[in-house]
Amino acid sequence: MNDIKIEEDSAGLSDVPGFVSAGVACDVRGTGDGRLDLALIASKEPCAAAGVFTRNVVKAAPVLLCAELLERGGGDGIRAILANSGNANACTGPAGMADAKEMARLTEKAIGAPPGSVLVCSTGRIGRPLPMERIENGIRAVALQATEGAGSGNDASRAILTSDTRPKTVTVRFEYEGRVFTVAGMAKGAGMIEPNMATMLAFLGTDLKVPATLLRDALDRTVPGSYNAITVDGDMSTNDTVLFLSSGKSGVSLSGTGDELHRRFLEAVRLVNERLAEKIVSDGEKITKVVELQITGAPNEKEAEKVAREIGNSLLVKSSWYGEDPNWGRLASSAGASGAVFDPDALDIFYNDVPALQGGDPCPDNVAAWKAIVREKRFTIRINLHAGEGTFRMLATDLSEAYVAFNRTE
Amino acid sequence: MNDIKIEEDSAGLSDVPGFVSAGVACDVRGTGDGRLDLALIASKEPCAAAGVFTRNVVKAAPVLLCAELLERGGGDGIRAILANSGNANACTGPAGMADAKEMARLTEKAIGAPPGSVLVCSTGRIGRPLPMERIENGIRAVALQATEGAGSGNDASRAILTSDTRPKTVTVRFEYEGRVFTVAGMAKGAGMIEPNMATMLAFLGTDLKVPATLLRDALDRTVPGSYNAITVDGDMSTNDTVLFLSSGKSGVSLSGTGDELHRRFLEAVRLVNERLAEKIVSDGEKITKVVELQITGAPNEKEAEKVAREIGNSLLVKSSWYGEDPNWGRLASSAGASGAVFDPDALDIFYNDVPALQGGDPCPDNVAAWKAIVREKRFTIRINLHAGEGTFRMLATDLSEAYVAFNRTE
Repeated sequence: MNDIKIEEDSAGLSDVPGFVSAGVACDVRGTGDGRLDLALIASKEPCAAAGVFTRNVVKAAPVLLCAELLERGGGDGIRAILANSGNANACTGPAGMADAKEMARLTEKAIGAPPGSVLVCSTGRIGRPLPMERIENGIRAVALQATEGAGSGNDASRAILTSDTRPKTVTVRFEYEGRVFTVAGMAKGAGMIEPNMATMLAFLGTDLKVPATLLRDALDRTVPGSYNAITVDGDMSTNDTVLFLSSGKSGVSLSGTGDELHRRFLEAVRLVNERLAEKIVSDGEKITKVVELQITGAPNEKEAEKVAREIGNSLLVKSSWYGEDPNWGRLASSAGASGAVFDPDALDIFYNDVPALQGGDPCPDNVAAWKAIVREKRFTIRINLHAGEGTFRMLATDLSEAYVAFNRTE
Repeated sequence: MNDIKIEEDSAGLSDVPGFVSAGVACDVRGTGDGRLDLALIASKEPCAAAGVFTRNVVKAAPVLLCAELLERGGGDGIRAILANSGNANACTGPAGMADAKEMARLTEKAIGAPPGSVLVCSTGRIGRPLPMERIENGIRAVALQATEGAGSGNDASRAILTSDTRPKTVTVRFEYEGRVFTVAGMAKGAGMIEPNMATMLAFLGTDLKVPATLLRDALDRTVPGSYNAITVDGDMSTNDTVLFLSSGKSGVSLSGTGDELHRRFLEAVRLVNERLAEKIVSDGEKITKVVELQITGAPNEKEAEKVAREIGNSLLVKSSWYGEDPNWGRLASSAGASGAVFDPDALDIFYNDVPALQGGDPCPDNVAAWKAIVREKRFTIRINLHAGEGTFRMLATDLSEAYVAFNRTE
């Protein structure tokens, strides 16, 4: 095999030796539509685990519970992740926390795992109590499927979706000293996508034996450039969670940082996270385009990020992308509104490689070229502030009338 | 008369002794539709003047020119404001600055005023050269109307509009020691409305003799609570300008601060700015509702403002207002995403006076009451963070499908 191999739309966590996964329908939404809405990823052996969570002050009960469990146990002894869609279990008061704990307890019982070994996630509508009776039935069913090997990674990846239109999975395999190791993941996204992982769940697994501290380190290195560098609507949710489990099934340990095995592992994790992030933004709610923003020449990376986020979240800019209107004036205005410090008379703006503004001067002769570029489904806007060495890359989407119509009510 | 009298939809600056105003059509847009697009406000005697401008790093040429002129002349000796709609003269390079200077020079010539006495403003599309020949004709026409007393404040207030649907004027008269003084204003708004005066022009005049420093002081005291406390789409433009001229025609001087005359003057300025700001937000592009956000109990005012802006600019929140869906979960999530520090278990959310969340616990029994409230054209959302004494009040709008359709192209 090649050094590193990427499989898109894979079986997700089921591709990773040591893990089984399954998804069932337990009617969380109460619509009786038979939609898959409860996913389980489980390991027979205890896993090391790490997580990164929303920075929203208002955190859903399962987010608080996951963070506490990983903190308390040092990220060791984790046996499973249980996740439901259709209800976020957020803003649900003390009853919501009791429900999250009960979901963990029921799962532990169903898979024969000790207390404190199951991580629980929820995503969906805020402020409604979970239908615990139906969830209890679902847990029994999903645990049975998973433990009997009858479940599928594909079902699991479907069961966590909300307004997503397709499942999101990727599997990366890499070789080291003649052995093949796997890092795979699944995710859901759609709405509330932006600052710092919005309504977003991503679960990763590896068969390399990685201690919890290095799992966390790998997330810290790769989350900023992946899940935190995409925007659909600029809304940060209460439930964002990235979890990473190591089954250690390969028997090979990653013990330290800086060596070749660690380098390859990090590269695999980066690829999984970047591919999942791209899948999330490309499946944003009612979008028609993905625009890659490449900001360079900022005083520093933070300032470059400010410019990217201001542009990526501007309603006027997003509307003009939707309209396939190469309105670079709105790009310049948003860059200037971002708070980043630069000289507007030095500003360059490019659509792909075609300049729209150079040194603060418009290039109206290129208008036909811009118009052709903004009609593409995916194009790049490059902005050079000529004010330093800071760069930031971000994936943003357009804003359609259908987004507004879709989100009028929930 | 009463102590203070407010006249809505007034003749604007023409109500202020010492000022004449006019508006003409000179086809800035090149559509030949006869739309009013050039406004002049002039005084026979030199005025004291002050201005507040966009904080966008990318500033239109006329903004730079106004700021420089007020700085250079200390805000004295101003004879007129000339403003065009249909073209922002922003991102137009050195040619744009030359055009702005030429507009001032032509106006000075037309009204017989000395160099450096005319303030120029532009609003409209970014990045296109001004049609200077047509503007030159327009300046001659508007100056003639204004100086011959044939112009109207109503025409002037219409000539500065872009995507606004109606002119915005208000006149406030107040009494002091048996004399009546006037503060009046006109404004335009519509799109690119938010952080710190977006595509927004507001011109104020008074016949009280007020030195430039106290005009500026009055703006500094009243702009944050008016123009800077509204949001339509969160976009800050390159052209935002508030100008305030004192004709001194009353012959009565405001010399210091803290006395009764100053107090009444400030109250009048505050009223003019608040009324104009409310008119701007109520005429936001394709909005259907105005929502007043009252944030209390924040650690300080800055944190309260963060919460208000996060909510007022959330696409999900704005879409749900449009859909008349009392989605308080999105309010809680946005408050938590704002970066403000508070305990979510203490959070209160009210629609008008009806609680939706109290002490972090939902109040589902009130759902019928919320639903009735969010069907109103204007309602209030009160959020108490229970984390201090900081408060902030802001006017926000919903987001309609029509906004996106309208801004697809320009």
